[in-house]
Amino acid sequence: MNETETLSRKADFPGLVTADGDPWHYLDTAATAQKPRAVIDAMARALGEDYATVHRGVYGRSANMTLGFEAARKRVARFIGAASENEVVFVRGATEGINLVAQSWGAANLKEGDRIVLSQLEHHSNIVPWQLIAERTGAAIDVCPLTENGLIDLDALEAMLTERHKIVALAHVSNVLGSILGAQRAARAAHSVGAKLLLDGCQSAPRMRLDMDELDCDFFVFSGHKLYGPTGIGVLWAREKLLDAMPPWQGGGAMIEQVAFEQSTYAPPPQRFEAGTPMICEAIALHAAIDYVEKVAGPGGMEGLFAHESALAAKTRAALQSVNSVRLLGPEKSAGIVSFVMEGVHPHDLGTILDEENVAIRAGHHCAQPLMAHLGVPATARASFGLYSDESDIDALLRGIERTQKIFA
Amino acid sequence: MNETETLSRKADFPGLVTADGDPWHYLDTAATAQKPRAVIDAMARALGEDYATVHRGVYGRSANMTLGFEAARKRVARFIGAASENEVVFVRGATEGINLVAQSWGAANLKEGDRIVLSQLEHHSNIVPWQLIAERTGAAIDVCPLTENGLIDLDALEAMLTERHKIVALAHVSNVLGSILGAQRAARAAHSVGAKLLLDGCQSAPRMRLDMDELDCDFFVFSGHKLYGPTGIGVLWAREKLLDAMPPWQGGGAMIEQVAFEQSTYAPPPQRFEAGTPMICEAIALHAAIDYVEKVAGPGGMEGLFAHESALAAKTRAALQSVNSVRLLGPEKSAGIVSFVMEGVHPHDLGTILDEENVAIRAGHHCAQPLMAHLGVPATARASFGLYSDESDIDALLRGIERTQKIFA
Repeated sequence: MNETETLSRKADFPGLVTADGDPWHYLDTAATAQKPRAVIDAMARALGEDYATVHRGVYGRSANMTLGFEAARKRVARFIGAASENEVVFVRGATEGINLVAQSWGAANLKEGDRIVLSQLEHHSNIVPWQLIAERTGAAIDVCPLTENGLIDLDALEAMLTERHKIVALAHVSNVLGSILGAQRAARAAHSVGAKLLLDGCQSAPRMRLDMDELDCDFFVFSGHKLYGPTGIGVLWAREKLLDAMPPWQGGGAMIEQVAFEQSTYAPPPQRFEAGTPMICEAIALHAAIDYVEKVAGPGGMEGLFAHESALAAKTRAALQSVNSVRLLGPEKSAGIVSFVMEGVHPHDLGTILDEENVAIRAGHHCAQPLMAHLGVPATARASFGLYSDESDIDALLRGIERTQKIFA
Repeated sequence: MNETETLSRKADFPGLVTADGDPWHYLDTAATAQKPRAVIDAMARALGEDYATVHRGVYGRSANMTLGFEAARKRVARFIGAASENEVVFVRGATEGINLVAQSWGAANLKEGDRIVLSQLEHHSNIVPWQLIAERTGAAIDVCPLTENGLIDLDALEAMLTERHKIVALAHVSNVLGSILGAQRAARAAHSVGAKLLLDGCQSAPRMRLDMDELDCDFFVFSGHKLYGPTGIGVLWAREKLLDAMPPWQGGGAMIEQVAFEQSTYAPPPQRFEAGTPMICEAIALHAAIDYVEKVAGPGGMEGLFAHESALAAKTRAALQSVNSVRLLGPEKSAGIVSFVMEGVHPHDLGTILDEENVAIRAGHHCAQPLMAHLGVPATARASFGLYSDESDIDALLRGIERTQKIFA
């Protein structure tokens, strides 16, 4: 992709400018992505001239809004290669999606003696829900180790799985290291002992071509706000048959078939898992986000975005390699995410100095404390790229690191 | 209030105009309220030039966004007369708020033999969560009957409560009938046997002055989208001490203190109950909604809005009284909500004909099937008012009903 294209992408994002009108070098897309104008406009229209509730009104505007809401579900299904929109449950975010699986599927299928596999690099949102359901059901958690370069160790996974393991829940892409899971091999391993595989797709959905059939997982979750969409919405995907066998989790309007005090009956999925007025405007804005992302990706599809961000990550790693005080973490081949530490400089201090240069990185434990423990650091500095990132952002980062070195020298 | 004021209110709402630019007589505010431009603009700014994540970034924009997000919490606390913003938990909506109470407080405090009191007029969102937790814990549900004119019968409530009752969960205002609960008396009754009182404030928050101390309830929930705010956000209020004693419900980032595979520890409330990236932009837009509502209410406060909508409801009831084929449901004194049935005309048909006249009412069971069973009707027609409603909306409704009568004559 040439310079002009990237520049025009940046122009689509009102968030990529500082209050003073200067370029903002936003390198925190793994935390949350900036929103293109198309998403902001879709949200404004949905909240404004198009606004009505869904699924219930007898008037035309509500019927239209329902079509818009359900079109968003179809759009998500197409984006992730789902077999049907009925496999798509709208949730608040990936965190809620994992909690839903843990508390609905987990409560119904886990018992004393059963085991859950997570990896050492999981985000807290893919750890704590399992700890809570383990405590409730008497199941236990096993931790899959990492390879030396920060990948989930699939040899170890294969070796540790037994018939007592009921579910394996892994990050498709690490939010700290950018490590990419061998998802199909993980699926084969899980299925070989009759376990389900849940993939946390927060970092892969915005960066990789997704095809649920090809991935062969059983549950897939991601957050809208990391996919250039609004806050307050995410997706849980699972095959209809699996969803259909799961008991309701939250009760309320829209998820029922019939309510009586003696006995209530529940709607089929996905409605069964969408109690209450849904995130109507958020779903419509997420639709606009996916349209935008695929338009930018062009005919090459998401592979193009993946190549773009991987290349930026590789360039960043190469440049940082030559900075003496920097220690790079994670694998060479990263999906657009670079974590590192600077000798003698706390990541927070680096972040603060970079902020003065209009460069935004994340510094901290990235909601992955067990990984920090494994890496032997309390925190890392993390630069993460998005479809709007370009070399000017890397240059700004390197200038800031240079200045930091001088300050701390 | 004079005509001009009401007209200018309508002008603040881009949703109150049809696609052809005609006035849209929106009488479905109890389902969801239209949004003033101030809310739409706040959302656009939050998604655009102000956008960043909260609570984690080391850069200035994230710090500002965190201030904005937490300012929204403070604003909610002030709006409902809470003692502290730490009593305000952001949830997806009232439905999630009730599920949170049922599954966190309920799972920890309910056991076999315990009893839960609901009323006959509850919304499904205040029935099904209790059925699910009753099934899980072995507790049972008792149903408080209604008085002849459609109020929750507090004499009956007082008579039925025993030491085995642990929680009473009631609608502050009925979403179907507009009936207003004697909340303080309900609180006294519940507390006299040591039970908690949860109020479903979905219909009271947009229409009544709220003061948590005065109401003396233990839990209060409402939805942002019914309070002229965005979809995807709501509030659970409870005193800090009560929240603090409740176990976490959903696990994930932001709700933890420390995560390790051996043992995780949890943040104090409200964060304990806000796993994952929160509804950042929705909270900020809800703040704008509350500012707008209080500005419109003027120095008289929410009482003025209550009087405005009650008066419209009373006028509507008076006018419908003289229509032979109409049977009014619910009490004379209604908080801005009028339900009725027309002899020989299904509410859906009425709704469809009214839609042709640019009048939007709701027709159906209003997510209150047990109330429909009690009323002996499968569905009602419901006109509900908002702060932008005026007599032109009533006139349009009456014209439409007249036309419907002619069609069905």
